[in-house]
Amino acid sequence: MNEPTGTTLNSETRLGADQLLDGLYRGGAEICFANPGTTELSMVSSLARDGRIRCVLSLFEGVCTGAADGYARVSGKVPLTLLHLGPGFANGIANLHNARRAGSRIINLIGDHATWHLEYDAPLTSDIRSLAQPVSREVIYLDKTGTITDGVTAAFAATNRDEGGAATIIFPTDVVDAPAAGSASVEETAYRPRPVPAEALDKAAKALGDAANVIVLIGGNALTEAGVRAGGALADKLGGRLLMEPYPAIVTLGGDLPVVERQAYFPDDVMAQMGDATVVLAGARMPISYFGYEGWPSQLVPEERLVRLAEPGDDAVAALADLTDRIDGAGAGVPARDAASAVASPAAQDALSAASVVEELLVQLPQDAVISLEGSTMGGPWLKQAHRAKKHRVITNTGGAIGQGLPCAVGAAIAAPDARVVALQSDGSAQYTLQSLWTMAREGLKVTVIIAANHRYGILQTELKRADIPLDDPVVSTLTDLDHPRVDWVSLARGYGVEARLARTNGELAEALREGLSLDGPLLIQAELP
Amino acid sequence: MNEPTGTTLNSETRLGADQLLDGLYRGGAEICFANPGTTELSMVSSLARDGRIRCVLSLFEGVCTGAADGYARVSGKVPLTLLHLGPGFANGIANLHNARRAGSRIINLIGDHATWHLEYDAPLTSDIRSLAQPVSREVIYLDKTGTITDGVTAAFAATNRDEGGAATIIFPTDVVDAPAAGSASVEETAYRPRPVPAEALDKAAKALGDAANVIVLIGGNALTEAGVRAGGALADKLGGRLLMEPYPAIVTLGGDLPVVERQAYFPDDVMAQMGDATVVLAGARMPISYFGYEGWPSQLVPEERLVRLAEPGDDAVAALADLTDRIDGAGAGVPARDAASAVASPAAQDALSAASVVEELLVQLPQDAVISLEGSTMGGPWLKQAHRAKKHRVITNTGGAIGQGLPCAVGAAIAAPDARVVALQSDGSAQYTLQSLWTMAREGLKVTVIIAANHRYGILQTELKRADIPLDDPVVSTLTDLDHPRVDWVSLARGYGVEARLARTNGELAEALREGLSLDGPLLIQAELP
Repeated sequence: MNEPTGTTLNSETRLGADQLLDGLYRGGAEICFANPGTTELSMVSSLARDGRIRCVLSLFEGVCTGAADGYARVSGKVPLTLLHLGPGFANGIANLHNARRAGSRIINLIGDHATWHLEYDAPLTSDIRSLAQPVSREVIYLDKTGTITDGVTAAFAATNRDEGGAATIIFPTDVVDAPAAGSASVEETAYRPRPVPAEALDKAAKALGDAANVIVLIGGNALTEAGVRAGGALADKLGGRLLMEPYPAIVTLGGDLPVVERQAYFPDDVMAQMGDATVVLAGARMPISYFGYEGWPSQLVPEERLVRLAEPGDDAVAALADLTDRIDGAGAGVPARDAASAVASPAAQDALSAASVVEELLVQLPQDAVISLEGSTMGGPWLKQAHRAKKHRVITNTGGAIGQGLPCAVGAAIAAPDARVVALQSDGSAQYTLQSLWTMAREGLKVTVIIAANHRYGILQTELKRADIPLDDPVVSTLTDLDHPRVDWVSLARGYGVEARLARTNGELAEALREGLSLDGPLLIQAELP
Repeated sequence: MNEPTGTTLNSETRLGADQLLDGLYRGGAEICFANPGTTELSMVSSLARDGRIRCVLSLFEGVCTGAADGYARVSGKVPLTLLHLGPGFANGIANLHNARRAGSRIINLIGDHATWHLEYDAPLTSDIRSLAQPVSREVIYLDKTGTITDGVTAAFAATNRDEGGAATIIFPTDVVDAPAAGSASVEETAYRPRPVPAEALDKAAKALGDAANVIVLIGGNALTEAGVRAGGALADKLGGRLLMEPYPAIVTLGGDLPVVERQAYFPDDVMAQMGDATVVLAGARMPISYFGYEGWPSQLVPEERLVRLAEPGDDAVAALADLTDRIDGAGAGVPARDAASAVASPAAQDALSAASVVEELLVQLPQDAVISLEGSTMGGPWLKQAHRAKKHRVITNTGGAIGQGLPCAVGAAIAAPDARVVALQSDGSAQYTLQSLWTMAREGLKVTVIIAANHRYGILQTELKRADIPLDDPVVSTLTDLDHPRVDWVSLARGYGVEARLARTNGELAEALREGLSLDGPLLIQAELP
C-alpha cells in the first residue's frame, strides 16, 4: 500500500522507539527535556504511550541541555534530552560543553533521517556525529533496530566513565519505527567515584610532612557538604587554607560549614593568592590560567608544589578523610560559626550595587536553597560572602559557555521541587537562553531570577581595560556596550508569562525578593546596577 | 617584564589581527556580524583601529550567522561573523546549516586559545574543527602568523566553490597578537556560476524534443528576475509549467514576472504535482522527499523523466536562454500581467486568518520589498499568492534549521537599506533567535515583523495527524502546544526596544501594517491566528 506511514506510530506492536525508551527508563532516566521535530515524532509517540518519563518542553534547545545539566548536578540522576537532527542538537552544544566540564551525566537523543533516505542529502541532513563528538563521551549511532539495547547500555556506561559525562544516541527514524520485540535488558548502575589507592595517600601524607604553608583545593565530589567538611578538617590540621576550584559544578556553602575561598580568575591574582603554598588537589584540577596571556604561564602552581591527592573522577571525600587521619597533630579546630546572625539589609533608600544585592540575599536566602550563578558581576561577590548565608548549594558556569544560568535553574528547580532556586544572573549571558523563562512559567517552578542589569559585557570591558584599550572607542563601545537600546527585562519576562519587578534601590530589591521567595512559581527581578 | 600583556593590542606595531582584517577587507568583506569574547578582543581592537569594516553586534550568535546569511543572499557579497571559541560558534551552527544549503558566501572568524595554552585544556577549550566542519566548505586553522594571507585567500576561494558557501577561519590569540609586517595580498574575486557546456544543452534539447508534458523547475541563479523570466519563456515555448524548488535561497516574484508554482512539501503532494511530467532541472536539485516516510520513495521523479540542464552551481539563467533558443516553435507567449490590480483588503471586522494576512500584505507590500519567510503557517499561503504582489524578493528557510527568519531579515535590511523588509514569521521558529529584535532596534532597520501567533508547533501537529496520533494526548499536547502560557510577543518586542501591535482582526492588521511599512525602523505585529 502506497499510503504514508507513521501509521505504525500508533500501532499496538512494540517498536524500536518503545524498546529504546524502556531501556532508558530501566537505566534510570525519569525525565526528558525536549524540543522535538519531525524525525523525533516516533519517540514523542512512544513517550505518550509509555507515560513513565516526564516530558518538559522548552522553546530552544539550549534550554533543554542546560536544564538537563542543572537537573543532573542537583539530582545525580541521568536526564534525557530529545533534540532534532544536527541543527537542533547544535543549538544545545554550548550548554553540553558546560555539562562536560561539570561531569554531568546526560543522555542526548537525536533523531536522524531514515537510513535509506540519508544518501539523498535532504535539506536537514548533516554530519551529526561531527557535531556531537566534542561534547559527548561517546556517540552511539543506532544503525539497526537490533542494536538498541546494546546502545542504551553503552550510553549509560559512558556517562559513568571518569568524572561522568554525556552520551549521545543518534536514532534514524526507520530504526525506531521498526518492530522490536522484547524489553530492553538494561540495568541501572549508580555512579561511583574511583577510590584513591593507599600509595597515593602515603605519598600525599609524606609530601605534606613538613609543608609550612598549605592550600587544600577542593573539586569533584569534595564540593559536597561532606567534602567541604573533610577539606576543612584537613586544612585545619595542616594549619592551611581551604580553597575551591573557580567554577564548581555544584558546591555546598554557608551554614556551619567551613569558609571556602574561591580560586581567583586572572593569572596574576591566582599566583598572588597561591603564594608559595603547597597545593593539595582534592578532586580539583590544578590551577591554570583561564585564558593564555602573553608573559604569564598557563600552569600557575609549579609541579613541585602540587600534591595530587585525588583527580576529578576520584573519591576525594574519602581521600581527604583518610589523609587527615594520617597527619599527626590536632589542629586548631574549625571554629563553630553561626553564619546567618551576621547579616543585615543594606540601607533601603540607597541605589543598588552588586555588593548590596548580595547583602540582601544573605539576609533572605532560605535554608537549602540552590543558587544558579552566572556572570562575574554578582557571581564573584556572592562567592566571597556565601559562608555568611544559610546552608545552600551553588551551581556555577563550569565551561564558560554563556547562557547556562537560567536553564540550569530550570533543571535545579525540577530536581529539587521543595528547594527555592535563585538565579543570580548577569544580563549579557542571560540573553543566550532567555526562553528558559517560559519553561519556568509553564512548569510553575519556584525560581527567583535576579538579573544584574548593567547593560554591558562587563568581563570584556575588564579585559580591555587591562590591555589599555579605550572603552569609548566607537567600535569597542559598539561591541561591548548593551545600552542602546536598554533591554527591559520586566517586559521580556512578562512576555513569557513570568511576573517581574524592577529594582533600583535596596528597598525595592528587598521587597521584590521577599515577594519572589514566597511565590509558588517564578519571579524575575531586574536589578539595575551601575 | 611579568606584566599581563594585551598591551600589544594597543600597539602601533601591525599585528596578525591587522593583517587578517586587511586581507578580509581587500577580499571584499565590508561587514562583520559579531558576538566576541575574550579570545576575539585582538580582532575587536583591530576592527577599531582599522575602521573600514562595519560591526554589527547581536546578543546571540545565531543572530550573527543568520544575519550574515541574509546579507549574503541579498547583496551577493561576503560578510564576516566573529564568534567566541567552540561554544560561541556552536550557537551559530543552525543558521550556518541554512546558509550552506543556500550557498551563501560567508567567512566565519573564531578565536581560539593561544597555541601554547591549548594543552592545558582550559574550561573553554573544545574541538572547534569538529564543530565547524559540517557547515564549512573549508576550515582553516591559522597555526602561525605567517599563514594569515594564504589562509584568507583560501577562505575566499572556498566561498566561491560550486554553488558557494562558508569558510571558517580559526585564529589562536598568539597568532593574531604577534607582529605581522606587510599587508595581505588578497584580491577580490567575484562569484561566477559555471557555464553549462554545449553538450548538456544539446542533450536537454533532444530529451525535450517530443515531451508533451514539461515542468521547468528553477533553482540556483535561475531564481533571480532574469532566471524567472528565462524559465517562464522556456516553459511557454514547451507549453509546460514553471515551478521553483520548495525552499529558494532568494527568489524574485510578483510584478509582471511569470507565475511560479512552488514544489510541494509532502511526497504524496509532490508526486501528484509532478504527475508524469518531464522535469527540467534548471539550477534546482531533483525533487526528493523532505523526510523519509516508509512506503514512499525518496526520489519523487524517476531518473528517466529528469532532464538535468543545470546543477545548483551552474549558470542556469544562460542555460535556460540557450535551451529556449534551441527549441522549435513560438509558444503561446507569456501573458502580460498587472499583478497589483487584482488585490483588495479583506473585511476589516473579520478575525484574522493566514489567508487574510496574506491578502492584506498583497495590497500593501511596496515595490522591491524583501520578504524573509519562515514557517508554513504564512509561508505556504504567501508563496501561492506572491505573483499577485508588486515585484519583490523572498528569502526562505533553505536548510530547515529553524530560527532563520528574523536574523535573515536583519541581514537583508542591512544589505538593502532602501528596501522595506517584511518578516513573515511563525511563532514557534521565531523563538530560536528572537534576540534579533534587539539588533533591529539598535540599527534602526526598516523591518516589519508579522508573527503568525497560533501558539503551537503547527508542522508537528500536521505530521502527527497524518500518522493518526491523537493531538489531545497529554504528552503529545505537552510537546506540541505552546499555549500554556501564551507568549506575548508585544511584550517581548518592547523588551528589546521594538514597538509592537496586537492584531486580531483584518482591520487591526491593516492599520498596524500601514504603520509598520511607513516607519523608519522596526515594528512587530502579533497576528493572532486560529
